[in-house]
Amino acid sequence: MSYQLLLNVGQQVHRAVPCSSSRPPAPDPLSLCQLNVTEPGSEISAEPEKQEPTDLSRMRSAVVFYILYVLCLVLGLACVVCVCVWNSHWYGGFAWSGSPLQFNWHPVLMVTGLVVLYGFGAVVYRIPLTWAQNKLPWKLLHAALMLLALILSIVGLRAVFEVHDAENIPRLYSVHSWVGITATTFFAIQWVMGVAGFLLPWSPMWLRKVLKPIHVLFGGSIITLSIIASISGINEKLIFSLGKAGGPQYKELPPEAIFGNSLGVLIVAFGLVVFMILSNPKWQRPDSIPGEMTYSPLIQDDNE
Amino acid sequence: MSYQLLLNVGQQVHRAVPCSSSRPPAPDPLSLCQLNVTEPGSEISAEPEKQEPTDLSRMRSAVVFYILYVLCLVLGLACVVCVCVWNSHWYGGFAWSGSPLQFNWHPVLMVTGLVVLYGFGAVVYRIPLTWAQNKLPWKLLHAALMLLALILSIVGLRAVFEVHDAENIPRLYSVHSWVGITATTFFAIQWVMGVAGFLLPWSPMWLRKVLKPIHVLFGGSIITLSIIASISGINEKLIFSLGKAGGPQYKELPPEAIFGNSLGVLIVAFGLVVFMILSNPKWQRPDSIPGEMTYSPLIQDDNE
Repeated sequence: MSYQLLLNVGQQVHRAVPCSSSRPPAPDPLSLCQLNVTEPGSEISAEPEKQEPTDLSRMRSAVVFYILYVLCLVLGLACVVCVCVWNSHWYGGFAWSGSPLQFNWHPVLMVTGLVVLYGFGAVVYRIPLTWAQNKLPWKLLHAALMLLALILSIVGLRAVFEVHDAENIPRLYSVHSWVGITATTFFAIQWVMGVAGFLLPWSPMWLRKVLKPIHVLFGGSIITLSIIASISGINEKLIFSLGKAGGPQYKELPPEAIFGNSLGVLIVAFGLVVFMILSNPKWQRPDSIPGEMTYSPLIQDDNE
Repeated sequence: MSYQLLLNVGQQVHRAVPCSSSRPPAPDPLSLCQLNVTEPGSEISAEPEKQEPTDLSRMRSAVVFYILYVLCLVLGLACVVCVCVWNSHWYGGFAWSGSPLQFNWHPVLMVTGLVVLYGFGAVVYRIPLTWAQNKLPWKLLHAALMLLALILSIVGLRAVFEVHDAENIPRLYSVHSWVGITATTFFAIQWVMGVAGFLLPWSPMWLRKVLKPIHVLFGGSIITLSIIASISGINEKLIFSLGKAGGPQYKELPPEAIFGNSLGVLIVAFGLVVFMILSNPKWQRPDSIPGEMTYSPLIQDDNE
């Protein structure tokens, strides 16, 4: 028995319906994975009377995307502003001197790089308005944003490592640091693999097809790890800092604690909005159109 | 212009290809969201010569699922064992007396309920071998596992609240607690909405269709929040506990720190495996088949 998968983008419902039978028997579970793949260029077109609801549906889909995209930008910028304010207002600002002021770069650079810029870099590739344009500039922008995010993350790690070294504190002892270093390492691997697999011209088509779902899955895992590291890091910083020198303790919820916790909420909200965008298959950028391949040899119809 | 979306389950590649044109112009970005939705019961069937690779592809898909499913079970059980060992070996075991021993129930119940049972409950609905069976028993199992997970989580919260009350420590002051209470609240809302929307017979078909993507998205968000809360909670517990009474500090990485951090790594790994299963659309349970509707009025063809 064969099944045909219907993807209703208006309602985001996947369903498998039986073919070649008016009243099917109970399905073979494996057969439910089996699809009839229609070849590109086939002539099936929408019925004219179904055009209007489909137009409405895709318009609604685009509007929802742009609402989420603006929300993503606003939340991301709010995260960057808040992490800067937190470290400048309550911890005296920034320096690169091995002093506690150098530590303040760590949360700022990790949140800005590993969370916000990473999220921006991930969703920029999903903007429907860019789909009519050649893929290469957007691919380069995606890679460039990710490279900037990776550099900021590495500098952010260097900031805390140098402070730990200066104060004779071991590096990487907490579960926060274990998750954070894993996120950054995965990110570096992802970036190198992304460039090698999708940007360089010698990467064959079959390799790109194999790599793409891994790239998407790995990408989602990295931002999850980043957000886990951020929240545990904010928690750790507030526990270590509040209550020192007779000041209010964390459990008394002084203004800094409320501000830091709220920064955590903003980061989580940002991450969830990024997830909402990335997890919706109808916002995945479609393949290049053959007629658009003007950037040869870098551009290929590579299913990215 | 209309586009037809091809979902290649073998390689998990979504692509939009133009219809009714051999060499299309640059696409209208909105049109890329527009699909030709084939009606259920249409007669398109696989070409015989394509049967073999498709069989191989779906067999491979099922094997990958079951490898991930076993990994999910093993990691989940390892999380439960480790969180129990951690609290019994290093913190003296369990009691319900308002003493520190009562606190030990908190990590055990939250990890067991809000993370592991929740994850098990989410993926049980994706097992391909169950697709040939009636949906209702699996829907009930899904709901029952989630209810058990929710009850354990609420008891886990009660454990820590009572200890805080007994020790005059405010409830819910840390960002760990803010994320954790949000996860549990969302989970309670999700469970009630799930029962009302998908189990009770008066929920109309259109409502089920609207609710389903929200249920899936909200479900993924809840386990993300649970894992963030777990990691920040382990970090917090190790910071608060280690170094007390002249014992080794967290930064010296004594055996308990390594054990606690490793529990965190296990939880993150479990969460990522659950995500890998949930994020793959080809493992989403298909609709009920009309011939299977023997549980009326509870069973409906509800696109879950």
